[in-house]
Amino acid sequence: MTRWALKLEYDGRRFVGWQRQMNGLSVQEVLEEAAGRLCHDVVPKSVVAGRTDAGVHAAAQVAALELPDTLDARAVREALNFHMKPHAVVVLEAMPVLDSGWSPRFSAIERAYRYVILNRPARPATLDGFAWHVRASLDAEAMHRAAQSLLGRHDFTSFRASACQATSPVRTLDRLDVRREGELVVIAAEARSFLHHQVRNMVGTLKLVGAGKWRVGQVADALAARDRRAGGPTAPPEGLYLVEVIYPAD
Amino acid sequence: MTRWALKLEYDGRRFVGWQRQMNGLSVQEVLEEAAGRLCHDVVPKSVVAGRTDAGVHAAAQVAALELPDTLDARAVREALNFHMKPHAVVVLEAMPVLDSGWSPRFSAIERAYRYVILNRPARPATLDGFAWHVRASLDAEAMHRAAQSLLGRHDFTSFRASACQATSPVRTLDRLDVRREGELVVIAAEARSFLHHQVRNMVGTLKLVGAGKWRVGQVADALAARDRRAGGPTAPPEGLYLVEVIYPAD
Repeated sequence: MTRWALKLEYDGRRFVGWQRQMNGLSVQEVLEEAAGRLCHDVVPKSVVAGRTDAGVHAAAQVAALELPDTLDARAVREALNFHMKPHAVVVLEAMPVLDSGWSPRFSAIERAYRYVILNRPARPATLDGFAWHVRASLDAEAMHRAAQSLLGRHDFTSFRASACQATSPVRTLDRLDVRREGELVVIAAEARSFLHHQVRNMVGTLKLVGAGKWRVGQVADALAARDRRAGGPTAPPEGLYLVEVIYPAD
Repeated sequence: MTRWALKLEYDGRRFVGWQRQMNGLSVQEVLEEAAGRLCHDVVPKSVVAGRTDAGVHAAAQVAALELPDTLDARAVREALNFHMKPHAVVVLEAMPVLDSGWSPRFSAIERAYRYVILNRPARPATLDGFAWHVRASLDAEAMHRAAQSLLGRHDFTSFRASACQATSPVRTLDRLDVRREGELVVIAAEARSFLHHQVRNMVGTLKLVGAGKWRVGQVADALAARDRRAGGPTAPPEGLYLVEVIYPAD
């Protein structure tokens, strides 16, 4: 068997999230069942860089699984894409894993997410399910200034989901940029790893600043409180995209 | 009654096109039926800048219709958007029409379309229905050079649908830019008006150049032939967006 690293794109609206669930179709199930068709119907187990929630999209998720030695990179991509039809997930690229110690999850040195807000009065027509619709005009510049107070190594308990299973609430946030692009407000977040719901909780908090309900300085206060009740609400999943996972010597 | 100009966004996948049809839901029907709810159920007739085909999207279509005098611009937008739910069409902006001679169709001095090709081996996951998927690698620069030979005032019979009802095949093409944006190839087309299927027929022809099946110079030859059989095939509707309609002193 050969272990393959797969770069995946998917439409989060169509799935209950990455992980297999009893209540609906997951990306993991679609991928593993397709891979099973290449393994005499023995369904392999995959490992993933980031277990995205229901509704969250991926432009470049990374997963790994084992397949028979007979396939080259092109055949792996084409065969998996064929068997995953008509589900809204595709393999963009397949690469054989040479280092047996490599893990899509633990070897990642940086993860990049993008969060898209559609900021206008009219509900979305073409971006329905692909952006958070916020009617009230947002001050993206104020949001960006507030976001800078979250950069660096901190205890992010105030922005951590109660269900988060990480052993430590300390993370190092490398980038949190907010910029306006016409009627969109786009947030770029980068860190080695994030707590569960951390990006969505930071975005939900920054939105309060953008809407003028919080002062810029209140975001630093919320962080310092180390209490989830001090942070803002969780932004909805449909605006979130996993856009890149970086590995050493990538 | 007051006549209103409406800027509309819609997801072409959900409709049989702009115009009312017996075989399915049209954007026109959704808009006019919603407007009827504001007119004591007397459904008004709308006029539109460009009658888009089934599957073609709009970021800024322009339509006009009459509504009772009691509504202001915000109320028109909000009420129509409320009554058009849950259909994938929204009013972005409503403006009262002051000049009785103004027509969304005949007063337009420029129309801008964008055509999006997703150029990669893997089928689209998040852009499904929003781009033309072309697997073979395209030379966008060659497509751009070929496109320049179509600029200016010409008889565009070679790129005109057989069903086109325009009295003259002569049009003036002001812009036809092709550029690569990562795995996308984006074509921007601008003219006062276009023949039926003209953008899609030009794109289908430029794709032959991009794929190396036609030389750059063959596009000028096809134009000169003034024969639809000399042009390339019609690109599919899902990559096409009506992005702007310009009026004098807009």
